[in-house]
Amino acid sequence: MMKTFDEYLALVNSAIERIPYPARPANLYEPVIYTMAQGGKRIRPVLTLMACDAFGGDITRAMNPAVGLEMFHNFTLLHDDVMDNADIRRGQPTVHRRWGENVAILSGDAMLTMATALVVDVEPRIMPEAMRLFNQTAIEIYEGQQMDMDFEHRHDVTQEEYIEMIRLKTSVLLGCACRLGAIVAGADEDAAQGIYDVGVNLGIAFQLQDDWLDVWGDPATFGKQIGGDIMNNKKTFQLIGAIAAATGDDADELRRWLSDSYALRDMKVTAMTAIYERLGLKQRCREEIARYSALAHERLATVDLPDEAKQTFGLVIDTLVDRTK
Amino acid sequence: MMKTFDEYLALVNSAIERIPYPARPANLYEPVIYTMAQGGKRIRPVLTLMACDAFGGDITRAMNPAVGLEMFHNFTLLHDDVMDNADIRRGQPTVHRRWGENVAILSGDAMLTMATALVVDVEPRIMPEAMRLFNQTAIEIYEGQQMDMDFEHRHDVTQEEYIEMIRLKTSVLLGCACRLGAIVAGADEDAAQGIYDVGVNLGIAFQLQDDWLDVWGDPATFGKQIGGDIMNNKKTFQLIGAIAAATGDDADELRRWLSDSYALRDMKVTAMTAIYERLGLKQRCREEIARYSALAHERLATVDLPDEAKQTFGLVIDTLVDRTK
Repeated sequence: MMKTFDEYLALVNSAIERIPYPARPANLYEPVIYTMAQGGKRIRPVLTLMACDAFGGDITRAMNPAVGLEMFHNFTLLHDDVMDNADIRRGQPTVHRRWGENVAILSGDAMLTMATALVVDVEPRIMPEAMRLFNQTAIEIYEGQQMDMDFEHRHDVTQEEYIEMIRLKTSVLLGCACRLGAIVAGADEDAAQGIYDVGVNLGIAFQLQDDWLDVWGDPATFGKQIGGDIMNNKKTFQLIGAIAAATGDDADELRRWLSDSYALRDMKVTAMTAIYERLGLKQRCREEIARYSALAHERLATVDLPDEAKQTFGLVIDTLVDRTK
Repeated sequence: MMKTFDEYLALVNSAIERIPYPARPANLYEPVIYTMAQGGKRIRPVLTLMACDAFGGDITRAMNPAVGLEMFHNFTLLHDDVMDNADIRRGQPTVHRRWGENVAILSGDAMLTMATALVVDVEPRIMPEAMRLFNQTAIEIYEGQQMDMDFEHRHDVTQEEYIEMIRLKTSVLLGCACRLGAIVAGADEDAAQGIYDVGVNLGIAFQLQDDWLDVWGDPATFGKQIGGDIMNNKKTFQLIGAIAAATGDDADELRRWLSDSYALRDMKVTAMTAIYERLGLKQRCREEIARYSALAHERLATVDLPDEAKQTFGLVIDTLVDRTK
């Protein structure tokens, strides 16, 4: 009998609360504890438990690997926040704002090593496979992050390159989460690859929805200010599409907003949103989300799983892709 | 038949040159290639091959783990250089000076993951043990680095705390290098622990010698400027000893030099060296080095190894501890 997303989440939350940390040096471990206590959606560890359960595994054996992936994800956010010089994460000051950059770098390093130790806390028989999957995924995520940073200085990024970047930076970790659960459950290679592909396609749809919400989300439910990506000139799916498609007055206006470092928030967000809509990018973005969501569903249909498990995964895909925050 | 240090080093160098790297993203991998090509003493991978050989193992099987430890060591230097805002490493611009801080952080992260993958590239049977050893060692090194950073803001650091800090920050990795070679060779737990202890004591003597050379090294052979630690007010064995022991005029003079941000290099180095010598710290430092060197030799004598292997290790201890650069 499969559980709901929230039931897996409750198990994950309680495991994260019980992680033992050394007391000293306080400046090494307090930022880790602070980061792990900030919450977040915790999608990755839930997917690991869910996949393990779906393939008939013992989810208690997937718990440390699941928590390890969440710690890894939080490590990437911690170092990304240093690189982006971000002030706020999940409504609280970022680690480098609170403890300084050196502590943020070093605590992040410690999180990566602790995450690795948790991920490979599996039966020795499957340890090499778990290790290979995790290392490969981590490397792809760094590649995605570097591509994302490289995109900042480029004006000719294509939507295909963008999808490849988010596949690496975001989606492979969702695929890895699913596959890790399957590995712990002893699923065969076909099934493990199948559920990995489901996670990757879900991940792309998920990230595109993130981009979408930044522009067209409802301020009442979104939880953060609309237009953060717009204000940072972040090369999202929409912005890349607009740079490629805009001509004439639209192109001039777009160039002006992108080079105006002192633009007022409301004015820039309203104007950029209007440009996106004139160029049909609201529609294009929804179509792209629907496309990857459909790919996830189609791949799920081919995986050898009981109907109940497929329904649970199907529901999670729809919930994550249609989310409003 | 054991090889010499330089013979193991030649094997390590050639393996490091042959590491395959992806071409893209260039900003992720070029800094890694740059860092790994800078050389250095490469003591850690040599110790791994040497220990594997000493316990009758096949050193080709220890090569990837050995290279992994060197990559891990270089990762710690790369991130330490960001934290210390250092300009030069091994005579060349540091990665963050050349590519910027964001690239340095991310490339370092990639090196940690690649290092982990190399270290656990061993037979599945011994993978859990190699993984545990490596993760534990890495965590201790972060703890040591954090202690070192915490010491900057403290004036009551004891020599015992200092030794504990360098044990964590530097020495456990030399112990880990020895133990990893023993594990690959299939040595028993007693032997593995024994050669680990040899490495740790050697590591403490090695780091104290580093401190010593910064003050009393011969500029003609040292390879870098004398007094770098003095100019940075780095809490070395000598400075901690001087802060604890100085009274009267010595204490006043010491305080003046430590708080003078504009001191001329020659004047400060000459004056601080004189204070150290008046307080007997040149002698105390040599005694401490001799003590840990002796501990390494004594522990080596208890390890179940052929005489030839013991002689090789013994020679390495003496060479590294008495080095002039």
